[in-house]
Amino acid sequence: MLASIISSGMSKIGRRDDLGSRELFAEAFTECMEKVPNVDRKDIDAIYVGSQSEIYERQIMYGNLIAETAGLLPKPAIRVEGCAAAGAIALRSAIIDVMSGLHDIVLAVGVEKMTAQSTEVVTDALMEASEPTLEQSNGLTFPSIYAMMAMYHMHKYGSQVEDFARVAVKNHHNGSLNPKAHLQKQITVQDVLNSKIVASPLKLFDCSPISDGAAVAVVTKKEIARKYTDTPIHVLGMGCATDTLGLYSRNDISWPNAAYLACSDAYQMAGIDASKIRIAELHDAFTINEILLCEAAGFSDRGKGHLLVRNGDTSLNGKISVNPSGGLKARGHPTGATGLAQVYEIFLQMRNEAGKRQVDNSDYALAVNEGGSDAVVVSHLFDR
Amino acid sequence: MLASIISSGMSKIGRRDDLGSRELFAEAFTECMEKVPNVDRKDIDAIYVGSQSEIYERQIMYGNLIAETAGLLPKPAIRVEGCAAAGAIALRSAIIDVMSGLHDIVLAVGVEKMTAQSTEVVTDALMEASEPTLEQSNGLTFPSIYAMMAMYHMHKYGSQVEDFARVAVKNHHNGSLNPKAHLQKQITVQDVLNSKIVASPLKLFDCSPISDGAAVAVVTKKEIARKYTDTPIHVLGMGCATDTLGLYSRNDISWPNAAYLACSDAYQMAGIDASKIRIAELHDAFTINEILLCEAAGFSDRGKGHLLVRNGDTSLNGKISVNPSGGLKARGHPTGATGLAQVYEIFLQMRNEAGKRQVDNSDYALAVNEGGSDAVVVSHLFDR
Repeated sequence: MLASIISSGMSKIGRRDDLGSRELFAEAFTECMEKVPNVDRKDIDAIYVGSQSEIYERQIMYGNLIAETAGLLPKPAIRVEGCAAAGAIALRSAIIDVMSGLHDIVLAVGVEKMTAQSTEVVTDALMEASEPTLEQSNGLTFPSIYAMMAMYHMHKYGSQVEDFARVAVKNHHNGSLNPKAHLQKQITVQDVLNSKIVASPLKLFDCSPISDGAAVAVVTKKEIARKYTDTPIHVLGMGCATDTLGLYSRNDISWPNAAYLACSDAYQMAGIDASKIRIAELHDAFTINEILLCEAAGFSDRGKGHLLVRNGDTSLNGKISVNPSGGLKARGHPTGATGLAQVYEIFLQMRNEAGKRQVDNSDYALAVNEGGSDAVVVSHLFDR
Repeated sequence: MLASIISSGMSKIGRRDDLGSRELFAEAFTECMEKVPNVDRKDIDAIYVGSQSEIYERQIMYGNLIAETAGLLPKPAIRVEGCAAAGAIALRSAIIDVMSGLHDIVLAVGVEKMTAQSTEVVTDALMEASEPTLEQSNGLTFPSIYAMMAMYHMHKYGSQVEDFARVAVKNHHNGSLNPKAHLQKQITVQDVLNSKIVASPLKLFDCSPISDGAAVAVVTKKEIARKYTDTPIHVLGMGCATDTLGLYSRNDISWPNAAYLACSDAYQMAGIDASKIRIAELHDAFTINEILLCEAAGFSDRGKGHLLVRNGDTSLNGKISVNPSGGLKARGHPTGATGLAQVYEIFLQMRNEAGKRQVDNSDYALAVNEGGSDAVVVSHLFDR
């Protein structure tokens, strides 16, 4: 038991015209604080903010921006970063801070305002998370990077484009039950296959959208969690691992090794194995990646992740409900916020507050958040 | 006693043509590891990297970039950020990590490659640390922000441009004794006063240069520090505090409140007061700021910081040796690296390895690193 989460909040995710990071954060923070009325905001000792890029709003100092918006100046407020893993890094930092004994109540924030910029600017900003010398400079983009992973997985293990499409269909279904999701429309396998090719074999509907959003969580020591809520959730284990930025220097681009290590560490710390997990929020920035992360998390053998979605094992209330929120694919992917949006979903599910998408058994849950092309991965394992 | 530092290294600071962040880091890391031959690099459990801007090298993932360069994949490697305070934030994160019990040996890194970009690009990237709505958008730059602070201090307390110039003269003198400093040339008060006005009352020689560089420190638990070196230094206290991004919303722009709070917290944690400090590395991005930080650190009464430099109290082996390295002004200011460059100097001084600029008494030392216009400040207090 590392720490407890006593509250969480999330803004509506999507194209949030006229709202900047401050307003998106305020929406999430207000919901979060309403759930713990006997936490005074002055009780919050420190803030960690995950935000991916300074380019979207021409702003670096998200620690200060958020602390000021929350009325939490002059508390310590620090930005942490790891591209799309920034949200989980903020949570991890908050947990470590509480574990250190320095602070009792720490706020983890993820926020990103992406849609005010053109797709070209966003694509450029995302590619700053790639290998500089051979890949970024030769024009690779993240869809093309994940397309290579997908192609190799198909070649090596026999996964099919229909399997990728099934991930999108499943996650759009879940998203249709999530009133805060960016995309709430159900789709079919044929819709995915008919959608525009972005980087073969990935189609438009294999890709997560560009979104605005914010999500937050309040972390405390376990000993004091029940002072503030009867239904905290607990962090049993966590992991963080890195891999080369460049695909070119990896042995097997169909194997997300950093994710495997991050999940293994979380299981070991928690003292449980993958078979116990009933809910997982996995970083499906592209459909292939949910399949790869199912393997890395130990939900299937290596090379068999696509069989899970093919067999319905990862559907809502299947063997493991994967991405009940709709995942990055349908809930949306405001990069720096995504890791905490995953935690928000798990927080709701574990408290039976997930409405139409409520999963029956949510005793153990795993969140896996990734930055770059599986370059830095952060996992958290929860129980209640 | 929070943690110990068993080694530190720093690249030469300056315009380092043809070297990127990876090479600058390698230079610092090599020096650092040579000082602790019985630390195998595999003993390093985690890495925190402070780097200010993704714009300079079109790169976000400094955690990965550094871990890969150091041969430390797949260890956890996270970027932390707070503009020019990123380096001290990396150290603070490493200390908190060790305090949490999660890891035993953690590497703190600060790195910045600024000079490959034009001054305009660098000025823009720095201004992303300012208040977005009223100040950044109206064309303020950091020299003009600090010029307003200086003007108000002159008006309120009677400091004079000659006092600011004396800070530059002192720090250039110290820098002339530092073979790794960016600027190693001695100057006179008249040189400063005759230099080009950047933002009145600040002249060119009141401003720190744009530099490339890297600095690192290895943090361990105190209990194991002497396994690796006979002369560790110890972190007795630390602080971190925030203020509004915008000057317009502060009560008194001549008072760096976040720095005051960060220093007060460090003193309280260490159980000592300002009178014990013999060495201080203070964030003199502009000469006025060394004066303001002397007040915030309690070296003088409020409004009397300029009298210290006027009286020679902050000279090398004065009452308190302030910026024996040459400070940001002369050692140089590679933004994300600066906080750890300060620690490198203190590490050398406390081990009597500072050569011609060695201070006689270095029992207690303070480092104060600042991001934005005193918007986030991180302090560390050391003994040996």
